[in-house]
Amino acid sequence: MTDRVYNFAAGPAVLPIPVLEEAQRDLLSLPGVGISVLEMSHRSPAIEDMMRAAEADIRTLAGIPDNYRILFLQGGASLQFSMVPMNLLGPGQSAGHIVTGHFARMALQEARSVGNINLAGSTEDDGFNRIPGQSELELDPDAAYLHFTTNNTIFGTEWQEEPDSGDVPLVADASSNIFSKPIDINRYGLVYAGAQKNLGAAGVTLVIIRDDLLERSPDTLPAMLNYQTHAKGNSAYNTPPVFAVYILGLVVKWLIAQGGLEAAQRRNREKAGLLYDAIDSSEYFRGHALPGHRSAMNVTFRLPDEDAEQRFVDEAAAQGLAELKGHRSVGGIRASIYNAFPVEGVEVLASFMKEFERTNG
Amino acid sequence: MTDRVYNFAAGPAVLPIPVLEEAQRDLLSLPGVGISVLEMSHRSPAIEDMMRAAEADIRTLAGIPDNYRILFLQGGASLQFSMVPMNLLGPGQSAGHIVTGHFARMALQEARSVGNINLAGSTEDDGFNRIPGQSELELDPDAAYLHFTTNNTIFGTEWQEEPDSGDVPLVADASSNIFSKPIDINRYGLVYAGAQKNLGAAGVTLVIIRDDLLERSPDTLPAMLNYQTHAKGNSAYNTPPVFAVYILGLVVKWLIAQGGLEAAQRRNREKAGLLYDAIDSSEYFRGHALPGHRSAMNVTFRLPDEDAEQRFVDEAAAQGLAELKGHRSVGGIRASIYNAFPVEGVEVLASFMKEFERTNG
Repeated sequence: MTDRVYNFAAGPAVLPIPVLEEAQRDLLSLPGVGISVLEMSHRSPAIEDMMRAAEADIRTLAGIPDNYRILFLQGGASLQFSMVPMNLLGPGQSAGHIVTGHFARMALQEARSVGNINLAGSTEDDGFNRIPGQSELELDPDAAYLHFTTNNTIFGTEWQEEPDSGDVPLVADASSNIFSKPIDINRYGLVYAGAQKNLGAAGVTLVIIRDDLLERSPDTLPAMLNYQTHAKGNSAYNTPPVFAVYILGLVVKWLIAQGGLEAAQRRNREKAGLLYDAIDSSEYFRGHALPGHRSAMNVTFRLPDEDAEQRFVDEAAAQGLAELKGHRSVGGIRASIYNAFPVEGVEVLASFMKEFERTNG
Repeated sequence: MTDRVYNFAAGPAVLPIPVLEEAQRDLLSLPGVGISVLEMSHRSPAIEDMMRAAEADIRTLAGIPDNYRILFLQGGASLQFSMVPMNLLGPGQSAGHIVTGHFARMALQEARSVGNINLAGSTEDDGFNRIPGQSELELDPDAAYLHFTTNNTIFGTEWQEEPDSGDVPLVADASSNIFSKPIDINRYGLVYAGAQKNLGAAGVTLVIIRDDLLERSPDTLPAMLNYQTHAKGNSAYNTPPVFAVYILGLVVKWLIAQGGLEAAQRRNREKAGLLYDAIDSSEYFRGHALPGHRSAMNVTFRLPDEDAEQRFVDEAAAQGLAELKGHRSVGGIRASIYNAFPVEGVEVLASFMKEFERTNG
């Protein structure tokens, strides 16, 4: 254990140590089964039970009622960028997309290669340093859905509450803040999230879809791109990514054991607060996101110049604070502190920031 | 270790114990990195190196030259059923499919929802107990490609050599026998395989594609469904299934250490021979596949009646021979003995068969 570093990576990202320890303990042979999870048939009772338990635990953790289906898919959020319009956009219909960052822009671009998509709002002109206000949105009451990105990993901004889409179903890419705080699922028609930030390892995508939206999928879609296929097959129409679902299930159990989503929100606010305090009490560090729009998951900031930023990243890494370099598209520093990131690591980073400013500022 | 059973599952399937042991040892922290592979960014040097090494080892193991790209994708063979025609079938073109089993039929069905596909051959009328002969095939010299399924998991048949498609590119679903014997890749335009039988755990799909076929992908495809996207992005256009690629890399290294594909073929022939001998020397067991068409990966056979088959499966499981029940669509017994299945387990099964026949025959 002592050789582990603090991993500030934006995703894939840090996992809870108890999850890793359980996976390690059982890696050669699941107790009572005599086969590794990596080797187990998705049709075996043990794996069917495991997948049902993961689904039930997600319903418990996030309060997901029976009129929503929970699917474990492959291809990441990137494949959802295409699957959402393929499944939800009827002939002649259009949908709205709000663009608040890099992945929101990718989602718009991919959706436009499928159908008619309107830009319902964007903060690109402000360098994506904020979330648009409700009054800035251009909403079409006849839209098939309204798509937004709940947290912007690269820019470090986060919706503090959902946009009001009226009767238009809300569709969210929640990859970078899912289950980091309570969610009122009834406000959503569909939520999707790659697992590798807050939910587990790369290789599985969680999709939560309301029953009425599930009925929109056209029969002409390829089976693997049709939500109905996966709903009818209980996410085992074809071989699911068994091990990635298993890890996701362990993470969800861990979140429940840690007190659920309200407790997660308290911990995440405390962690983010330590870093934003370090930024706000300094003349040396400049936060990218505007206060009131800041992400509790990804804290982004700049130093006076790129040389100082590179030194900061290098010296931090030498002290066991890894993966702090900002995304190549914006530069600077990014500290990703998802659910599983320990508060101790954040405290070490905050101290490191003060010391770095003292010697370099 | 002593609690492990012999796992005859058809996929996901048994993995080499040294692979599981290495994955277990490093599960909390990859040596020199201090982060679990489950938590590591796909943009980190360690993971980029790991993916490059997996690709290089595949080239070494199977003799894949530079004019073929090696891709690590998601969605299994099932998504390839759609991606192949989406990418390779030009406007106005048609392709041929040979149907030799359940998954070959699925591939045909999915391809037909994309474009114009001709049935180039089928052994469905014979209960898929054999592979069609070259003279039975109806080949179109202008076809965009000819698709076949190299091994039929459910029926236990295997192509002993590739069909001759002339100048038409050969496309193969090799999920259930890839790297179980030498492959002359120059005979193929594209080979794909879900990893969970011979290559690793579920969650990654290997695609080997010749450069000239890569140029066929239309720009209008969704990015995630376009082979060019993944080729240009070195399989990291979006977050790849890092852990599944890591396990695949360990399996390929293990295959190389075991002597490569010719040695694998010798071991696989020896293992299958033990079971086919047990069938052929018995009046009690009846093999499904015709001699000359038999699979070295999946040995399928029947007992006199379904009650006896159920007893066989139950008594075998009680002796640590797990997952011997045949696929629900054909019944009977299926022993899947992929690359990683140990010869000792096959010997135990052959003895069990003899003893079962003695007491029940």
